Amino acid sequence: MKPQNKKSWRYILHEIIYEADTPMGKLFDVVLLFLIVLSVVLVMLESVKWIDIKYHDILYFCEWVITIFFTIEYIARIITVKKPTSYIFSFYGIIDFLSTIPLYLSIILAGSNYLLAVRALRLLRVFRILKITRYVGESNKLAKALRDSRAKILVFLFAVLIISIIAGTLMYLIEGEESGFVSIPVSVYWCIVTLTTVGFGDIAPVTPLGQLLAALIMIMGYGIIAVPTGIVSAEYTKSMGKQDVLGKDYVHVNTQDCRNCGARKHRDDAKFCHKCGNELHPGINPET
Amino acid sequence: MKPQNKKSWRYILHEIIYEADTPMGKLFDVVLLFLIVLSVVLVMLESVKWIDIKYHDILYFCEWVITIFFTIEYIARIITVKKPTSYIFSFYGIIDFLSTIPLYLSIILAGSNYLLAVRALRLLRVFRILKITRYVGESNKLAKALRDSRAKILVFLFAVLIISIIAGTLMYLIEGEESGFVSIPVSVYWCIVTLTTVGFGDIAPVTPLGQLLAALIMIMGYGIIAVPTGIVSAEYTKSMGKQDVLGKDYVHVNTQDCRNCGARKHRDDAKFCHKCGNELHPGINPET
Amino acid sequence: MKPQNKKSWRYILHEIIYEADTPMGKLFDVVLLFLIVLSVVLVMLESVKWIDIKYHDILYFCEWVITIFFTIEYIARIITVKKPTSYIFSFYGIIDFLSTIPLYLSIILAGSNYLLAVRALRLLRVFRILKITRYVGESNKLAKALRDSRAKILVFLFAVLIISIIAGTLMYLIEGEESGFVSIPVSVYWCIVTLTTVGFGDIAPVTPLGQLLAALIMIMGYGIIAVPTGIVSAEYTKSMGKQDVLGKDYVHVNTQDCRNCGARKHRDDAKFCHKCGNELHPGINPET
Amino acid sequence: MKPQNKKSWRYILHEIIYEADTPMGKLFDVVLLFLIVLSVVLVMLESVKWIDIKYHDILYFCEWVITIFFTIEYIARIITVKKPTSYIFSFYGIIDFLSTIPLYLSIILAGSNYLLAVRALRLLRVFRILKITRYVGESNKLAKALRDSRAKILVFLFAVLIISIIAGTLMYLIEGEESGFVSIPVSVYWCIVTLTTVGFGDIAPVTPLGQLLAALIMIMGYGIIAVPTGIVSAEYTKSMGKQDVLGKDYVHVNTQDCRNCGARKHRDDAKFCHKCGNELHPGINPET
Repeated sequence: MKPQNKKSWRYILHEIIYEADTPMGKLFDVVLLFLIVLSVVLVMLESVKWIDIKYHDILYFCEWVITIFFTIEYIARIITVKKPTSYIFSFYGIIDFLSTIPLYLSIILAGSNYLLAVRALRLLRVFRILKITRYVGESNKLAKALRDSRAKILVFLFAVLIISIIAGTLMYLIEGEESGFVSIPVSVYWCIVTLTTVGFGDIAPVTPLGQLLAALIMIMGYGIIAVPTGIVSAEYTKSMGKQDVLGKDYVHVNTQDCRNCGARKHRDDAKFCHKCGNELHPGINPET
Repeated sequence: MKPQNKKSWRYILHEIIYEADTPMGKLFDVVLLFLIVLSVVLVMLESVKWIDIKYHDILYFCEWVITIFFTIEYIARIITVKKPTSYIFSFYGIIDFLSTIPLYLSIILAGSNYLLAVRALRLLRVFRILKITRYVGESNKLAKALRDSRAKILVFLFAVLIISIIAGTLMYLIEGEESGFVSIPVSVYWCIVTLTTVGFGDIAPVTPLGQLLAALIMIMGYGIIAVPTGIVSAEYTKSMGKQDVLGKDYVHVNTQDCRNCGARKHRDDAKFCHKCGNELHPGINPET
Repeated sequence: MKPQNKKSWRYILHEIIYEADTPMGKLFDVVLLFLIVLSVVLVMLESVKWIDIKYHDILYFCEWVITIFFTIEYIARIITVKKPTSYIFSFYGIIDFLSTIPLYLSIILAGSNYLLAVRALRLLRVFRILKITRYVGESNKLAKALRDSRAKILVFLFAVLIISIIAGTLMYLIEGEESGFVSIPVSVYWCIVTLTTVGFGDIAPVTPLGQLLAALIMIMGYGIIAVPTGIVSAEYTKSMGKQDVLGKDYVHVNTQDCRNCGARKHRDDAKFCHKCGNELHPGINPET
Repeated sequence: MKPQNKKSWRYILHEIIYEADTPMGKLFDVVLLFLIVLSVVLVMLESVKWIDIKYHDILYFCEWVITIFFTIEYIARIITVKKPTSYIFSFYGIIDFLSTIPLYLSIILAGSNYLLAVRALRLLRVFRILKITRYVGESNKLAKALRDSRAKILVFLFAVLIISIIAGTLMYLIEGEESGFVSIPVSVYWCIVTLTTVGFGDIAPVTPLGQLLAALIMIMGYGIIAVPTGIVSAEYTKSMGKQDVLGKDYVHVNTQDCRNCGARKHRDDAKFCHKCGNELHPGINPET
């Protein structure tokens, strides 16, 4: 934050909204966090018929209070930020907008109660606030571990998908419609349900052959869950405790030996023996 | 335990109740453990209709015997302990109280059979006795591993919750009431059931889009279970591995070098060089 | 195996039955393995109504062939072994007996078809034969890893049980009978089903509060599955390679003691005591 | 690929089909990948009644287009490859054939719609193309980790199977037919469903004893899932991490710098600079 005229109200406002160091900033974040959670709770309660009927007015009123607060906040963010456009089209800018607009739309457009559910996305705003908590370090570590094993996990999920499609097709052929395997997509869905050990049971094989294949799928699923876990464990162990093993204090050495003193394990780029100072001739040694 | 008048019956009683070194103390613990388990079994059996009808009197009698024993024990604990109040309002003090009172209340108040179930909390008292077993070491290690990864697991559970709420809202919009997704809270509940791979199947998606989203949720759940596991594995490997390596056959060494022969990696507490026997001067070496 | 008269038929028989090095011994094991698997398949097929009706005679005949073979084998084992009694009352001795007797009993006693299922225990005999396969090494490693973390896993399972009992009691109070939580034992059963993420769905909470608690139990179960995994992973990683855990700051020390100051734990290559600088004489110390 | 007459159309065709370095080769792979995925989607859509009825002609037409393309490709592969026979009977050769033939057969043979599902196997062809992607490295690593722990996982699955058969037999005896445990194979199937924590709930124990055993099976399954995970984790950690970091090819280096050439990172025991051969004086450098 470049120092600027302290008197500027925009500067102060910016500090309150974007920073969390000042008491005001902290307060703002706490209030915002409270309102976000409250608003999400409201969305949930509204969806419960009997609550909506009984307390509709209160819910509606709270919703308006929150929406107005969010509107003000949204405008304030646009005003105070340096490059408004870059904020508006940023991830959080869009989330903020989507968090604010639904209620207004619900007045204009009829039957846009679907839009209201969009407000659940307000939850994503929590992350911005959490940015300032002590847990951010941990979550970054987790995120890193996941990012590092992204490629591996993609490969894994891809394998899961292929297994599911092929096994799903087989189940469709074996079980057929009367057991609920009405189509290959449904069978594939069932395979994923089974492979991930969720097992709803809304669809279940009844023929001996189908049950045999199902058993194989389950055991496979039971076994391969070890793979992502193994990956993350390994990545995590690595990220946690390896850099103190392989740090700047280790170099790769080769097996050439000094023809003067016979010392081995020289640095790959060693020109002289570390033991007797005799010149090395890596060129001659085929292994180097 | 400060030594005090050995004759004092309160001292002896205290030793029996709180210590486990004396034969009497051991016996007391065993009896207590037996009665706790028995009483919990009784609570369970009472809840089974036909057993309650058939053996009501026996159960009731046993319950009274146990309650009276616990009452005496509770009083004894208060008498023998140094600061009764601090015991009464301690975790175990409250548990002991709650373990004792229900039956008495059930006489005074009618239809307080709910209170009787409170007796299941007696189970928590087991931990106090287990404090003395050989497993306490292990459980402490486990507890430590969990405590160390507390922050990470909280972050993880928080992420699970957010995913569930957003995915739940989507499922509510996609599936609607006729598939059992009667409200967002219920959908969120279903999401947790699915994400944790429990999958009751009392609610299950029927629309293709819903099943697609469900499949994504499952695969996500199947994948991210790796995260807590990875965390605990890593934490645990760390906490275990180091201390395991630091067994009797390994000692920590520092990087100070002997100014006589330049030998390095001396024990932290080394006074003389292990190579030339020259005296070391750790004091001078800042790093030691 | 002490060398004895090679001509002795008992010796040869013993070698065939108990050893697997000779071609005959190998053949015997293969035949036995085949018959065990076959007999278990028979037991399974018999339990399938329509198969039993259709092929009863064939199954029955095969069963007799196998039983007679096992009888002969059992007697042969008793004859050839040094201490018959110790074999008869050994684990495998009892298994062998139980594998052989049921069919004979089924003639004497009526309606002892339950006994026939005991033949499934024959499967356990497979392990004796597997003793000779290349997989035994792996299985020993696994067994060791499990044995090493036995105490930890017991603690873990005990915790799971306590959680289930307390949560089960709460669910019983919250949900009550109409939702299928007819008694505390059943609720505890449901809790275990849920905590282990099995989730049959034959019993499922219907009240909002019940579903909330259920969600907590699931997330708990989803989280704590990390614990046993972490334990085994760690144990296993350890048993596999503890050198890896060694950082650069640790050196191996031996147990020789300085005959001047009695200090122990010197570096393996130490020539002088790190404590008093007195010269060490590793050569004399047998252990070094 | 031995260099041969560049003009040969067969050589060019071979390069397009089998190599992926040339732009044409890349294009070919992309088109092929697209067609494979499309064809599998077609197979799935066809299986959905209402889609098949509504868009039958379009699906059928697309199917023919793809089949003809695959036919041409198949022939091209045979022509261009050096040893046609060895290709035809190779894994991918057979897959390619099975991917092409079904539609033709469906004309000749009536009601061979089962054959059509065989086209789902086309998915396997994807792997050939993926050979060229950046993920192949990861998947190889995964494959290696799995291959390394193959023996262990087999032992594990074998144990699971034995547990399931014995527990299944017990459940069959305890629960009997009215609870859905109609035969031992079905009970074993149920045991696998339970042990793998899938838990469909289509079959569930109703007797107290059955539920108790079920609870034990679940807890066992919940516990032993740790085993494969532990194995893979360990194998993976090993294969990934440490031994290639702290293997024999690495030595610890320090930060002292040669006062002649300023080179750093000398072996701890280096007496002479590895770069210029100048003598080092570790003693003087405070940090060493």
